Amino acid sequence: MTQILVSEVGPRDGLQSIKAVMPLEAKKAWIAAEAAAGVREIEVGSFVPPSLLPQMADTAELVRFARGIEGLNVVALVPNAKGAQRAVDAGVHAMSIPLSMSETHSIRNVRKDHPAMLAEIAEAAQIARAAGVHFAVGLATAFGCTIEGAVAEDAVVRLAVAAAEAGAQEFSLSDTTGYADPAQVRRLVRKVRAAVGADMLTTLHLHNTRGLGLANALAGLEEGITTLDASLGGLGGCPAAPGASGNLVTEDLVLMLNAMGLDTGIDLERLLKVRQILVDALPGEPLYGFTPDAGPMLDYNERIAR
Amino acid sequence: MTQILVSEVGPRDGLQSIKAVMPLEAKKAWIAAEAAAGVREIEVGSFVPPSLLPQMADTAELVRFARGIEGLNVVALVPNAKGAQRAVDAGVHAMSIPLSMSETHSIRNVRKDHPAMLAEIAEAAQIARAAGVHFAVGLATAFGCTIEGAVAEDAVVRLAVAAAEAGAQEFSLSDTTGYADPAQVRRLVRKVRAAVGADMLTTLHLHNTRGLGLANALAGLEEGITTLDASLGGLGGCPAAPGASGNLVTEDLVLMLNAMGLDTGIDLERLLKVRQILVDALPGEPLYGFTPDAGPMLDYNERIAR
Repeated sequence: MTQILVSEVGPRDGLQSIKAVMPLEAKKAWIAAEAAAGVREIEVGSFVPPSLLPQMADTAELVRFARGIEGLNVVALVPNAKGAQRAVDAGVHAMSIPLSMSETHSIRNVRKDHPAMLAEIAEAAQIARAAGVHFAVGLATAFGCTIEGAVAEDAVVRLAVAAAEAGAQEFSLSDTTGYADPAQVRRLVRKVRAAVGADMLTTLHLHNTRGLGLANALAGLEEGITTLDASLGGLGGCPAAPGASGNLVTEDLVLMLNAMGLDTGIDLERLLKVRQILVDALPGEPLYGFTPDAGPMLDYNERIAR
Repeated sequence: MTQILVSEVGPRDGLQSIKAVMPLEAKKAWIAAEAAAGVREIEVGSFVPPSLLPQMADTAELVRFARGIEGLNVVALVPNAKGAQRAVDAGVHAMSIPLSMSETHSIRNVRKDHPAMLAEIAEAAQIARAAGVHFAVGLATAFGCTIEGAVAEDAVVRLAVAAAEAGAQEFSLSDTTGYADPAQVRRLVRKVRAAVGADMLTTLHLHNTRGLGLANALAGLEEGITTLDASLGGLGGCPAAPGASGNLVTEDLVLMLNAMGLDTGIDLERLLKVRQILVDALPGEPLYGFTPDAGPMLDYNERIAR
């Protein structure tokens, strides 16, 4: 059975996109409960300045907590070399740094153009390498940008090559803006892999902004993608699009993968119970997903045993 | 460019699943506006006894109205031979009759076991053939049943063969219960086609109950499916699953197909405006879909021109 890694990014991507700050104890309960349901990788937070994102102020403490959970791969996002050092100090297994394919987006988001960001990546890569920490680069806005519109596929390839030279050990293709369509996913996965090697691109970071998230994930799986980022309850939404979900909804993704006979190692029924932690800790925050309402199919256990 | 037919089934499947009765004039406005947006096929209603489904009492009038719209293929659902005669009398281009793969579901739904329903299909097929009306059989609950659970794939194949012998000119595979997963879609499309011929199965009728609708549609497209049923606003929901969407959401489906460079002939921006008719005519009724909130991508027109 093909193993697929569902990487939970809700504690980072979900929580950084909402105004409410989740109490540390609730974050810990969330992380522990997902790990107990079989989730093997969690991005627990990001090492951005707390003045910018108070939601992420406790990331170091969460890393230490999550490191105590056996078998869990603990990831944090870092925006720069300084954040990389903080991530190393906290004890992450892996870090991920975003490189926005849209230079306009990069400048607005981290105030760095492409050359400046590639220099930052090189510095962060050195810090990670010296500490034996896995170092991934997220190719952000790879499928299009809310400011620039279309992003040239050749530019994505060129920047991936440059980031590999700067020290990236792995990439994820990120549909930051919810722009991807399945045909584009296939094309771009193939192009980037042809340039940097298939083993350097095994992860997709998709959003469900326009409801195409799982279809895009399927296109990725069919291209040999083996890691999919997702967020419990699709937490985070899309600030630019009221009513639109955030990341892939972990619950619906796990239902799909398990039903297809892929091995996620995740117990869906236990996972569905974790949602209550979000409901309790984030009152009034919209959550997404269909499986939490509809439940697994009647023959679900029959399917996953197949 | 590959042509894909998006068949709007909201006036039938959507409206029959909700309590409210949409006024005839609103239904006409909906049908006319969708056709004007480029939708080429609409299932306008069903010829069931009005005592059972008052929402469908005006189907004959809608058929006559829709027949006046140039280039529109006018379809109605019929539950039996009597309904087939009413459909012919009203002037449909095509009719569709459901045959539930789950015998328990068939008995509860239309009070007929499989032999009785196949006899009814044979009679309806004769009526359609005599009138030169296209006659399709919907293989309902083909992916699983809320009562029986798993439905054996061999049973689906066997019943499709029996329905072909009874006079079916075409099939749709129907995920009545929102149970399908993409791997199952591929498998079942292949098996049924191997038994009855590829040209006899070009349509999928999918629900989005667990959020897998578009992923299942994608799997179907990759198997050569060329017609996809969908409902504007995902109207209808799922009575058994509060919060769960009904059919594939037409808006999201059209966004996906157009963005992939497939030819639906549908102008998404015009289609999105049609939703207001549902909002006005069905106050308080939940509508689904992400594209109506998020809008097309910034580079959408660039994509579809590609």
